Amino acid sequence: MDKVLSRRDFLNLVGAAGGSAAVFQVTTALGMTPVIEHSVTPQLAPLAGKNRKVVILGAGISGLTSAYELSKAGYQCIILEASHRPGGRNFTVRHGDFIDEIGNPQQCQFDQAPHLYMNAGAARIPHTHHKILSYCKELGVELEIFENDNRNAWVQDPKFNQGKPVRSKEYLADARGFMTELMAKSIAPEDLDKPFSELDAGLLLDFLKSYGDLSKNHLYKGSTRAGLQSGGMLMPAIKKGVYDFSELLKADFWRFRMHWAEGADQGSPLLQPVGGMDMIVKAFMKKVGHQVTTGAQVRSIMNRSESIAVEYEHEGKRKQVEADYCLNSIPTHLVTGLIHNFPTRYVEGLKAPGRGKLTKIGFQANERFWEKQSIYGGFSWTNQDIQQIWYPSHGIHKKKGIILGAYVFGNKNGQMWGELKHEDRIEKALSQGEQVHPDYRKHLSAGVTVPWHRMNHMLGCDSHWSQQARNSHFKTLQQASGRHFMIGDQISYHAAWQEGAVSSAHFAINEIDQRERVKTS
Amino acid sequence: MDKVLSRRDFLNLVGAAGGSAAVFQVTTALGMTPVIEHSVTPQLAPLAGKNRKVVILGAGISGLTSAYELSKAGYQCIILEASHRPGGRNFTVRHGDFIDEIGNPQQCQFDQAPHLYMNAGAARIPHTHHKILSYCKELGVELEIFENDNRNAWVQDPKFNQGKPVRSKEYLADARGFMTELMAKSIAPEDLDKPFSELDAGLLLDFLKSYGDLSKNHLYKGSTRAGLQSGGMLMPAIKKGVYDFSELLKADFWRFRMHWAEGADQGSPLLQPVGGMDMIVKAFMKKVGHQVTTGAQVRSIMNRSESIAVEYEHEGKRKQVEADYCLNSIPTHLVTGLIHNFPTRYVEGLKAPGRGKLTKIGFQANERFWEKQSIYGGFSWTNQDIQQIWYPSHGIHKKKGIILGAYVFGNKNGQMWGELKHEDRIEKALSQGEQVHPDYRKHLSAGVTVPWHRMNHMLGCDSHWSQQARNSHFKTLQQASGRHFMIGDQISYHAAWQEGAVSSAHFAINEIDQRERVKTS
Repeated sequence: MDKVLSRRDFLNLVGAAGGSAAVFQVTTALGMTPVIEHSVTPQLAPLAGKNRKVVILGAGISGLTSAYELSKAGYQCIILEASHRPGGRNFTVRHGDFIDEIGNPQQCQFDQAPHLYMNAGAARIPHTHHKILSYCKELGVELEIFENDNRNAWVQDPKFNQGKPVRSKEYLADARGFMTELMAKSIAPEDLDKPFSELDAGLLLDFLKSYGDLSKNHLYKGSTRAGLQSGGMLMPAIKKGVYDFSELLKADFWRFRMHWAEGADQGSPLLQPVGGMDMIVKAFMKKVGHQVTTGAQVRSIMNRSESIAVEYEHEGKRKQVEADYCLNSIPTHLVTGLIHNFPTRYVEGLKAPGRGKLTKIGFQANERFWEKQSIYGGFSWTNQDIQQIWYPSHGIHKKKGIILGAYVFGNKNGQMWGELKHEDRIEKALSQGEQVHPDYRKHLSAGVTVPWHRMNHMLGCDSHWSQQARNSHFKTLQQASGRHFMIGDQISYHAAWQEGAVSSAHFAINEIDQRERVKTS
Repeated sequence: MDKVLSRRDFLNLVGAAGGSAAVFQVTTALGMTPVIEHSVTPQLAPLAGKNRKVVILGAGISGLTSAYELSKAGYQCIILEASHRPGGRNFTVRHGDFIDEIGNPQQCQFDQAPHLYMNAGAARIPHTHHKILSYCKELGVELEIFENDNRNAWVQDPKFNQGKPVRSKEYLADARGFMTELMAKSIAPEDLDKPFSELDAGLLLDFLKSYGDLSKNHLYKGSTRAGLQSGGMLMPAIKKGVYDFSELLKADFWRFRMHWAEGADQGSPLLQPVGGMDMIVKAFMKKVGHQVTTGAQVRSIMNRSESIAVEYEHEGKRKQVEADYCLNSIPTHLVTGLIHNFPTRYVEGLKAPGRGKLTKIGFQANERFWEKQSIYGGFSWTNQDIQQIWYPSHGIHKKKGIILGAYVFGNKNGQMWGELKHEDRIEKALSQGEQVHPDYRKHLSAGVTVPWHRMNHMLGCDSHWSQQARNSHFKTLQQASGRHFMIGDQISYHAAWQEGAVSSAHFAINEIDQRERVKTS
């Protein structure tokens, strides 16, 4: 290949980029009218007098959804929950709550107040998660906006800016500015020839100028988007200095964190229930709480020709329930340890997904020090294990608040943090947090640590499906084995989200509905 | 100039872009530690027995702030407000409220409910506006997150996509993707030579890939950032089709609207008082309401050697107040019409700023139809006069809601909409809104229109300072003329924002404080 690229070549590339759109099915997109994205809630045929019993294993979001919808249609539901509480990984920790980590039982020492809570599992609802949002509406769970992309929170990376944090908006504005400056420089319009007309090239230059907030001659000279150095009220605004592009590139921030809030589940707006994520659990429990037995540990699941039998232990006694169907949200890797009569292929499916190791750590702050730095909600990013520091979107300007001091994910880090003693996790979270907030430690107390892969009756966070496992086993596990349906976010393409849990529940109960309709007709 | 650009040349440009950072004072930025951005509230010396009277003209945010702070220090304050209500352009419209447009008096027909309000003036608080946020805290005004950058709201432009709206996130993801694809194509790493090492060029390519969500070979093949066409829960996720870059460039969206939420005042998070912006006014009024006389129209302001005299009309009578100082937030272009004895230079200053013409139109919706399209807060953009359609960040999932159906700005459009009859404004807002929401009209009623340049006692929105006017007259007007201080957002570099109003008040009362300290010492 030759070593020069003419400007004409370059502009041909421009054309090619535009043209590459043709590869895709643009017709749908281009021809679209606003689509009303109604949530589809199941419309089960009422049983109308038939007796049908469904035993549901696990009172997490998938189990509660199933019980709620099935009960509406006249099914008799029994929910067996191994833990002392319903909700599963929808778990809001408040004053006095018990955190059932194996080997590290904790009692939450936060003060008692409506705004002092930590959503230890599910903590935000994307605007695209129609089904869970629809239940919030139906069940009267009050929602508020969740701040997910705080441009004034910190970005910290030991390799960048000598490890000193900068505001997210500074990083974003400068990186965007220099990137577009580079591109603008390569297409000076006075040197352009066809196929791009002067107008087109000019348009592109204008686009870049606007995109990167470039100066008149297409250089990036800093931007007020990064915030101001001073002034703007009583004096003229003075722009901040800029970070050199090569310096910016040293931070791992741009590798994925910088684009986090562009993601399908992370794009603004997101929502949260007022008062804690478990307001959803409480709302479901108002409807189906009488069907839930907590502290019930399943021992066996046996498909029979005309029924399915589940044995469990409760208050020291072995009990059995016989039902028409079983919906099972027990983590797949724990199901394999039960007594069962599932076929080999199904058992292989149960063994297929891995499990996430994720630890969240919360602290009570004696004052909302972040708000003194003009941080309201959202989170700071650090390239240390703790990854994120979350600030509450609620309780603004109150005296105290709960912050999430670590969101450790990735199997290696998750494993390592889980193995640490409670005190060492706390210390590590504090010392890493100090890289972002130097006076962090003095404000924080009452640390709680929730490593989901060590939580009793869970021993894992979200299901991880490799592409191979997905191809070989997902459909097997999604379909029933006899009268037994696996449910939960684990049986979806959206693990770790409540929407996945609800979707799996809808899939299973629609299958049951189909069977019953066939029987009836 | 030659017609070819070698890749080496191009990469030299890359280097030059990095190097251009050196032009700026990067030391502050690079060496910075997290700065605690405390709000500076005035610390006035207590009068300690001295009698000082201050007459304040206008009970908007600048007047109320002044009265609040001066009262703390022992000054006797009298606030004369021409309108029937305090607050100025901090104006929340609710059931039954009177909208005092000259020639078009309206009474708001919204239903009565805490969430059914329209912030007709100030409607959001940037996280950087420390002073007004600090007053919210001090006065106990409850705040909540205001959604300002809804990626799921609509972008509509007659010139783009046959006028059919697309989700903001689709536009953003595709434009970003194609832009970075273009750039990536121009720097294929196998052709690189110095000065950029392969690593550096590779870094840049990786950056672009990550920035634009490019495929492995640096092409933009659509992105889940744009939302999904289908799947993602029970089935694999299918990406949406893409909009051709040249098609995207046809929309004016990228000229400034696309980057709106990158702006210094518009970057996330923003906040709003729970229950309406005038909760701030109400909180101030609890402190200084007894000092306010509404319906008091100023007729003359006369500086004297030992005092300042203000004549006004109230309930049909001519009255006078003599004070030590006068703080005046009356719009500058209305001050010039009063009887006064200001020096010529000062009067020139009063005449210097122009006035914005801005109209907001609100509707009550009988159902929150936008939430059925998964829109929670934020706003849609259209390239029609109405510019924006705002959806409330609060009252989520309730039955009804108030939307802002037009935010008309720019002097030409502002003038034109102001000249329309009330009914014609409503009709025009509805017919333009239908381009974004086809079934818009059937949901909306109780339209209120607030053209600020026609509101009684205002006759203008924000002050507009040309650079020349700013250079020639701003300092004159910011400084006192005798015992008379102009205040308000009009006397700041931040017109149309409450922070500008508070800043101007702080400036003036600090000046008064300095004078009193000198006298005392």
